[in-house]
Amino acid sequence: MRLHSYFRSSAAWRVRIALALKGIEVEQIAHHLLREEQHAPDYLKVNPQGQVPALELEDGRVLTQSLAIIEWLDETHPEPKLLPHDAFERARVRVFAQVIACDMHPVQNLRVLNRLRSMNHGKDDVIAWGQWVIRNGFTACESLVADQPGPFCFGAPPSLADICLIPMLTNARRYHSDLAPYPRLLAAEEACNAMPAFQRAAPAAQPDAE
Amino acid sequence: MRLHSYFRSSAAWRVRIALALKGIEVEQIAHHLLREEQHAPDYLKVNPQGQVPALELEDGRVLTQSLAIIEWLDETHPEPKLLPHDAFERARVRVFAQVIACDMHPVQNLRVLNRLRSMNHGKDDVIAWGQWVIRNGFTACESLVADQPGPFCFGAPPSLADICLIPMLTNARRYHSDLAPYPRLLAAEEACNAMPAFQRAAPAAQPDAE
Repeated sequence: MRLHSYFRSSAAWRVRIALALKGIEVEQIAHHLLREEQHAPDYLKVNPQGQVPALELEDGRVLTQSLAIIEWLDETHPEPKLLPHDAFERARVRVFAQVIACDMHPVQNLRVLNRLRSMNHGKDDVIAWGQWVIRNGFTACESLVADQPGPFCFGAPPSLADICLIPMLTNARRYHSDLAPYPRLLAAEEACNAMPAFQRAAPAAQPDAE
Repeated sequence: MRLHSYFRSSAAWRVRIALALKGIEVEQIAHHLLREEQHAPDYLKVNPQGQVPALELEDGRVLTQSLAIIEWLDETHPEPKLLPHDAFERARVRVFAQVIACDMHPVQNLRVLNRLRSMNHGKDDVIAWGQWVIRNGFTACESLVADQPGPFCFGAPPSLADICLIPMLTNARRYHSDLAPYPRLLAAEEACNAMPAFQRAAPAAQPDAE
């Protein structure tokens, strides 16, 4: 399989973590988002949305959207499971993942920040926007795991929730967000960072890292 | 079960369609988003994110995030299925749903448009923002169903993709978006609108409709 990626992309990072946790090796093809390589005509044939990640299967079929890719990986390569077996517990993990993947990440990604800049907003406005998104979302995330035992977001082993959390925390630090109100999220991050799979998937460990 | 809803909320509308397709009756509790009722302390105990929908189960447990709720409904009330049985086909439906639920809807919902207004952007800027989101997303959506037979987004019966499409088209018309480039999406909408379940779930048919 081939993963179209960019070392700094949060959504590609999620898929890299899932692949690493499952021990699946893929070829990585980098598209430099700041150089607009994701809008090249050849890549638009792979993903008409012009975003990473995209996962090309051995037979040439393509999947996009990180959560859809990860659920497909979890269904076709079941071990270790990234979602709980119980339907309600599985739904809770999806809720957490979707707070990040729907209501946080897309509202402050490169595309949106560039749009704000094109509307004459400077660095201060962009940072305030990012902090606003982080505060709203992480307040909900911290509450969603308040009754959970740790060490990961939803007990052990790590799940789709942790996969979404780790890149989002990196974004939050880019805006200098105050993370003190989210001790459970930070504890889950510490548990993830101790795992080789999470280390292998990190931006700095990718072939296109700068 | 009790559904916390608002007649105009796209995300609540999705869950109403899923419930109607499955013939599940729920009590609806309306929270008027323009009157900020979603931020009332009592509701924040139900959903710390301060958004609709939230589904309260008979035992008091709560699920939020429309896609997580719908997948839970599909797993616990299997007929009719809202996702295909085949893993790859299921992933494709999720991709379509997530283009709308991650990359379109949250980037132009009430919360974001209010934020833009608070940054001194007037009606024209808000409409241009909405049209930009619609154009990017629906171009990808139309491409994702180009090889599908219809009448719905992914053949028949209607799926999670159609459930996400219908409210998004209503949003698109609010921005006077040109929908002519998306004939497959409009054909799927026509097929959905002919079904009583989609009619019962529409905003105008809700108890809190104005």
